[in-house]
Amino acid sequence: MKREALVFYSPTDDPTAWRDALAAELPDLDFRLSAQPGDTSEIHYALVWKPPTGFFAPYPHLRLVTNLGAGVDEIVGRNDLPDVPICRLSDPGMVQLMTSYVLFAVLRYARDIPSFERSKARGKWEFIHPRPFAEIKVGLLGLGDLGAAAATALANLGFTVSGWSRTQKQLAHVNCVSGAGALDGFLAANEILVCMLPLTPETHGLLDKRRLALLPEGAKLINVSRGQVVDEAAMIEALRSRRIAEATLDVFVKEPLPEGHPLWALDNVLITPHLASNTTPAIAARDVAESIRRIRRGEEPLHRVDPKRGY
Amino acid sequence: MKREALVFYSPTDDPTAWRDALAAELPDLDFRLSAQPGDTSEIHYALVWKPPTGFFAPYPHLRLVTNLGAGVDEIVGRNDLPDVPICRLSDPGMVQLMTSYVLFAVLRYARDIPSFERSKARGKWEFIHPRPFAEIKVGLLGLGDLGAAAATALANLGFTVSGWSRTQKQLAHVNCVSGAGALDGFLAANEILVCMLPLTPETHGLLDKRRLALLPEGAKLINVSRGQVVDEAAMIEALRSRRIAEATLDVFVKEPLPEGHPLWALDNVLITPHLASNTTPAIAARDVAESIRRIRRGEEPLHRVDPKRGY
Repeated sequence: MKREALVFYSPTDDPTAWRDALAAELPDLDFRLSAQPGDTSEIHYALVWKPPTGFFAPYPHLRLVTNLGAGVDEIVGRNDLPDVPICRLSDPGMVQLMTSYVLFAVLRYARDIPSFERSKARGKWEFIHPRPFAEIKVGLLGLGDLGAAAATALANLGFTVSGWSRTQKQLAHVNCVSGAGALDGFLAANEILVCMLPLTPETHGLLDKRRLALLPEGAKLINVSRGQVVDEAAMIEALRSRRIAEATLDVFVKEPLPEGHPLWALDNVLITPHLASNTTPAIAARDVAESIRRIRRGEEPLHRVDPKRGY
Repeated sequence: MKREALVFYSPTDDPTAWRDALAAELPDLDFRLSAQPGDTSEIHYALVWKPPTGFFAPYPHLRLVTNLGAGVDEIVGRNDLPDVPICRLSDPGMVQLMTSYVLFAVLRYARDIPSFERSKARGKWEFIHPRPFAEIKVGLLGLGDLGAAAATALANLGFTVSGWSRTQKQLAHVNCVSGAGALDGFLAANEILVCMLPLTPETHGLLDKRRLALLPEGAKLINVSRGQVVDEAAMIEALRSRRIAEATLDVFVKEPLPEGHPLWALDNVLITPHLASNTTPAIAARDVAESIRRIRRGEEPLHRVDPKRGY
């Protein structure tokens, strides 16, 4: 008897956690590792992170490909994609983690923590009067699911929050602007800039030397999207001269960030190993299962990606 | 003609900001520095932080003393207080600042930032899988205005939050316990402990060597209340042995923390110079003015302190 099966591939995610989480949602769905796919004609669904070239060819009956992450830049540019819906993950656990990371990084600057870290290293008590949050302008580049949640959380804490996106958004208590024409003014207006853009041909290198120079003197930069959105060499130069006073970086052009990379040596940079947001299978599996149910019913899956648009 | 006047004294607060903020609320009230009090019989209100002994004696017509801060431990124990209502500040700006500090300090631990700071110093990419916040138990010692707001904000982020207070409180999504009998179990159950207790004779030295030893191995301690609530020597010993893995300290037995103090040298301690919460005159003046209006009408002022209870 034919079964419906899902093929799983990821160099980093835990297959056992995903098998268990999906079994709780869809007990009738067979979960198979790509190394042992069994009868490939039974494979209707693929759950993948950075699959190798040609990965999809053995599965003629695929009906849905789900990318094991929110960022789909690794998958949308390939020319070996099957002609089926491509989805990304957008689970509440990822939103919560990303929001918490952005809150942490912004609060660290708003509360002058890097200055106190330096006072600590000198063994000196150096008071800085806290600033009212309403005076602190925070700009979010990108207002997708993750960017919108972070913007709202920051506005709820009392910061003056603006958001820039490709197409116009509406968010309560967030000053939303959009389009290429609004970008220069947006960059010049915000002392804390949080980059949450997807990586697409349009955003690749968007924060180049000219645009980084538009940030106010002493700005703080937080990048939780993709390293390639920022001109890394120009950013390092601005951080060395302290024109950009501080940066919190979770993503890099080359990951893992190589030993000896100049960013490791900058004392005004906080580095985390690409985990601002991270998938929790037990939570994310609900949306993956729901999309499979929708495909079975002939409906649109959740969080569908437009490969032409790039996200 | 007799005027109504307020006398201001503080070694740290900015009198001009307070003069302006109170003038906006009560234009008819005369604002006087204690160095130039004018006709002392006109002084009906005192707005003070750590006034010297005998400060109140020259003002026979005082009707209200307002402490320029939330912590009243410096004022309630004195034997030179006039027999008038004593109030403390509790302005929304303080709540916002304190909440933001506690969120920052808890998120720093929940997101493993001290580990990444050490990886950075070594120049190494060392991944740690983020933990779901629901698995992280955060305990708040003290559920007054500030503690309750911080507990609620942490619960809203998804942490498993408990709170201990002298008398039983009720807070949505916070497991509230109370009384001396519940304290040992509370300390043993929470991996991140946030001390937000007022300093009173009962809380002086409350976190002594025995109680600090009840914290789970590898616990994190955040103190934003008063240094005297914790046995500083026992805490330093526990931090040196890493039984307490990390601490974020905003308050100390002696402030400013003296140069050469052993806490400066501990690499698992973040030190800030007593500013977790701080008064913003423009915001706090509203409550100060409202209490003066209430005294004029013969009503109870806001945020009255019971000197016998100590807070």
